[in-house]
Amino acid sequence: MQGIASVLSPITGLKWSDDPDDLQRYGIDWTHLWSPAPCAVVWPVTVEQVRAVVRAAATNNLALVPSGGRTGLSGGAVAANGELIVSLEKMNRVLDFNAVERTLKVEAGTVLQVIQEAAAAQGLQYPIDLAARGSCTIGGNIATNAGGIRVLRYGNTREWVVGLTVVTAQGELLELNRGLIKNSSGYDLRHLMIGSEGTLGIVVGAELQLTEPLPVSQVMLLALPDFKSVLTAFVQLRATLRLQAYEFLTDVALARVVQHGAAEPFDERHPYYVVAEFDDNEDAALQVFEQGVEGGWIADGALSTSDDHQRKFWHLRESISESIAPLKPYKNDISLRIGQLPAFLAEAQALFAERYPDFEVIWFGHIGDGNLHISIIRPAHWSEQAFAAHCAAATKELAACIQRHGGSISAEHGIGLLKRDYLDSTRSVAEIAAMRAIKTALDPQGLLNPGKVFAPDRHQ
Amino acid sequence: MQGIASVLSPITGLKWSDDPDDLQRYGIDWTHLWSPAPCAVVWPVTVEQVRAVVRAAATNNLALVPSGGRTGLSGGAVAANGELIVSLEKMNRVLDFNAVERTLKVEAGTVLQVIQEAAAAQGLQYPIDLAARGSCTIGGNIATNAGGIRVLRYGNTREWVVGLTVVTAQGELLELNRGLIKNSSGYDLRHLMIGSEGTLGIVVGAELQLTEPLPVSQVMLLALPDFKSVLTAFVQLRATLRLQAYEFLTDVALARVVQHGAAEPFDERHPYYVVAEFDDNEDAALQVFEQGVEGGWIADGALSTSDDHQRKFWHLRESISESIAPLKPYKNDISLRIGQLPAFLAEAQALFAERYPDFEVIWFGHIGDGNLHISIIRPAHWSEQAFAAHCAAATKELAACIQRHGGSISAEHGIGLLKRDYLDSTRSVAEIAAMRAIKTALDPQGLLNPGKVFAPDRHQ
Repeated sequence: MQGIASVLSPITGLKWSDDPDDLQRYGIDWTHLWSPAPCAVVWPVTVEQVRAVVRAAATNNLALVPSGGRTGLSGGAVAANGELIVSLEKMNRVLDFNAVERTLKVEAGTVLQVIQEAAAAQGLQYPIDLAARGSCTIGGNIATNAGGIRVLRYGNTREWVVGLTVVTAQGELLELNRGLIKNSSGYDLRHLMIGSEGTLGIVVGAELQLTEPLPVSQVMLLALPDFKSVLTAFVQLRATLRLQAYEFLTDVALARVVQHGAAEPFDERHPYYVVAEFDDNEDAALQVFEQGVEGGWIADGALSTSDDHQRKFWHLRESISESIAPLKPYKNDISLRIGQLPAFLAEAQALFAERYPDFEVIWFGHIGDGNLHISIIRPAHWSEQAFAAHCAAATKELAACIQRHGGSISAEHGIGLLKRDYLDSTRSVAEIAAMRAIKTALDPQGLLNPGKVFAPDRHQ
Repeated sequence: MQGIASVLSPITGLKWSDDPDDLQRYGIDWTHLWSPAPCAVVWPVTVEQVRAVVRAAATNNLALVPSGGRTGLSGGAVAANGELIVSLEKMNRVLDFNAVERTLKVEAGTVLQVIQEAAAAQGLQYPIDLAARGSCTIGGNIATNAGGIRVLRYGNTREWVVGLTVVTAQGELLELNRGLIKNSSGYDLRHLMIGSEGTLGIVVGAELQLTEPLPVSQVMLLALPDFKSVLTAFVQLRATLRLQAYEFLTDVALARVVQHGAAEPFDERHPYYVVAEFDDNEDAALQVFEQGVEGGWIADGALSTSDDHQRKFWHLRESISESIAPLKPYKNDISLRIGQLPAFLAEAQALFAERYPDFEVIWFGHIGDGNLHISIIRPAHWSEQAFAAHCAAATKELAACIQRHGGSISAEHGIGLLKRDYLDSTRSVAEIAAMRAIKTALDPQGLLNPGKVFAPDRHQ
């Protein structure tokens, strides 16, 4: 390869840097597990500049790492091997609102919250919502098919992308689906690109479907005697209410948020808690509640009577990560079929109790869509190194347990670098072979985000 | 290749036939444009038999045509070149209902209506509905990502497939997504397979998401002065009602159904008619109606007051195809962005009026999702051959017009053989190159439904 300056400087108007501070800052995401070592960062402002960068990279056999808000939790945006980082953050404009179709056209670097606000300004809603909303970008959301807190009601990012603009490894621009609702003209490359973590193309823009705003809702906090009851309550509530979210946490998680300053919600502690949000229908909610108390599958509960109250209930669930953040927990994000959750959880909890009795394991997550978050806290007397080694070993055993129950090693964070070695717990040998064949077909030089999702092919 | 008997007879228990009647019957779909010439038909009853057939075909370099209900309208299931037809029609069992997740596991040959009835028996709904419901199979629905009459409310088949079982060109079984709601572990091959018309894999089974039954609805029939008003009424109705369907027809279409026996809906004829179905909300509907009459964008209208009434309104829309069937019309199925419809329709109608003044062109379709159906009736004094030639020429001009307006040459029927030559009006050179690369990567021998979607690669 020529020097990076001679590769990039011919591209008209392209801003780039190889300043060590920039390399450090742009080379990592929220994982902080790898040492950043990119060769440079570019900040294109047009699609043509992105294409020119890809063509220059192809000529020089230079690996590229597409980069958005760098809030990922699997190392998908990490550049630790001399790659060129293509930051989309300067391509952050909301380009167009289409009132008839209720769609919003945006550049890939647009921050999620900006999109939510642009939708709200039109009296509509972009319904994907995540904790990282203030800094994650739509390009990154698309690259990982981000889910978040309202998947139960609205599905994942995938469902809201009606048009996708992607630059290929050849520097070609694909304008996929172009806002059509029905389109059975050939393979849906849009859906292939969504969730491919920048390994098949660089997302440069999207057209998003908007929808009606969230209806007025109520929130119920429930205490439950066991995990089976968490599912029983889910089935019963879903049968009578229109659920928007159904989240759970364990007593261990509750203890942490109470310790962190939250008010104790009930007189007694219970093994499991649920925060359920639904379209306003108090009578039906109370009926299910009474039924649950009589049937023994609800131990206690409270219904929101005000916005302030709603916020307090949600705070119990939403402050879990914050309450344990100073302890630098080891995090995992997995999914299972909903019906499989009780059997899986029993086995996984037994696994941790037996094999890792010193771990404090905090379970919580989006039960309504089968998504569990697991945070493990380092025992005070362990070194960070010993803890990391044990967590890696535990993840391997956890992956085997997930596999036995037909789940997924990554629910919404992607595979990136972090989960690459566990991909085969979720995808079969034949599936991985098909994925690799597609990667090689679309990116034969292996330019795009190499090493993410799976290790680079030996031919690359 | 060895004789077909020696290829197939080693497969234990496999039923097959090379009887000329079977070849004739299974070699075509509803297009009836090609002469069937398969070498044989097999009816596997297990996934293992499908795999064995594919492996035998690979060994003998024998092309395969996956086959469902053969109700396709683009020739996707046609076998006109000595292919072996893999009929899934004996794999037609509903395997399992999951009450917690509200999913239904079915074999690929299960007829759509059987699935709808199985869902209804559980107090739920499988919301994809098409005119061919009594004979089309879920495997074919998936292969074309079928849409139908409630896409506006429920989306396409794609949205309801939570698990997909596919046999690859290598005879491997892929169990894709396995019922997970959140799963960001690698490329979503499920979505790549959906809509790929049997060219990337043979769908052998699916797990389908069910949902609540359709709410009680009302149907409104509207007469409108021009096409712009069809869209104005759509936007206004959507803003106040929860629409389930929004269909249109022209005065030419109405004349045909009235001639076929339907009652004249209004005292006078109007240029356009709309059938709108929505969740019961009479007051809001009447308010929009009055607003439309005052604003001049609604000329006349009627609101259903009974089930019988609803059926009469729907009959006007649903009997169009039947009313003109004896005339063997030339059919097209296209889609555009909704907002682009008025400009497109004006241009397309002018095109037909100017270049093909002898054609009777009947426009109707699912306006709420941008899907137009076009039926052209042969002028009485033209020969069938002359008519076919002119229709092909007209389709070419129509494709160019669709391309100028950013639409799709196939909304819900697929590309198959019929629209192969027009694929490049909807997909760019780079997109087609990517599609071909994927086809070659997954099916290097070109065994699966060769010649469908695009002409076989010269290397195959």
